[in-house]
Amino acid sequence: MTESIDSKDRAAIEAIVKQLEAAWNAADGDAFAEPFADDADFITIRAEHILGRAAIASGHAGIFRTIYAGSVNQLTLEALRLLRPDVALIHVHAQLDVPAGPLQGKQNARFSAVLTREKGGWQIVSLHNMAIPPNAQR
Amino acid sequence: MTESIDSKDRAAIEAIVKQLEAAWNAADGDAFAEPFADDADFITIRAEHILGRAAIASGHAGIFRTIYAGSVNQLTLEALRLLRPDVALIHVHAQLDVPAGPLQGKQNARFSAVLTREKGGWQIVSLHNMAIPPNAQR
Repeated sequence: MTESIDSKDRAAIEAIVKQLEAAWNAADGDAFAEPFADDADFITIRAEHILGRAAIASGHAGIFRTIYAGSVNQLTLEALRLLRPDVALIHVHAQLDVPAGPLQGKQNARFSAVLTREKGGWQIVSLHNMAIPPNAQR
Repeated sequence: MTESIDSKDRAAIEAIVKQLEAAWNAADGDAFAEPFADDADFITIRAEHILGRAAIASGHAGIFRTIYAGSVNQLTLEALRLLRPDVALIHVHAQLDVPAGPLQGKQNARFSAVLTREKGGWQIVSLHNMAIPPNAQR
């Protein structure tokens, strides 16, 4: 069951996606993790299950310094719907360009995420990322 | 923010995971799709985005006849928490044994899913599957 979403909620969620993109491109792990709930679940493209904002921040700070150093990520919000008035489901496509290193080149990923609206605004409570296989890239 | 879950809701969600496992092992696409909402989102291990119960049923019927024919799947509910009293988030590990064909062998996957409790009971509204890379198998 999908509920209609008002423009204010939509704008807030779009801003969170933009913040993830900007934080990635600034290689800022803390800024990347900021939209997540304290106890958020994060499944990486390696199928690792990271628990909590602090671990999301340090994990991303690590990859921003190493395998994804200098990379540029472009996020596109493909779908957004409300499961409840205060629970949203999004699907986002990521196009990543890595300038050097073992992962050099362009890569595509897709993540789904669940957000809830709390007193302080919308937060990501769960994110499941995945690489798109090269033979299915788009 | 995680809410406590009562034993009845927990049992209902555990039963849905068991139903997915049993339907897979019976190669029954319709039974596999039955716990999903009409308009559920399903991201496959190939990063394909399938929309709706009917497409989930036909897609699984297809792989049950072909690449996963005769396969045995063992699902383990790794985590379950409530995002709202009627919205649950689960993480499930899948250990798949394929007897023959191009995917012959043991494979591991992990999916996250969101369920909502509607008048008819709990339904899966979103599922995001992914293969666990061989160098991270567990």
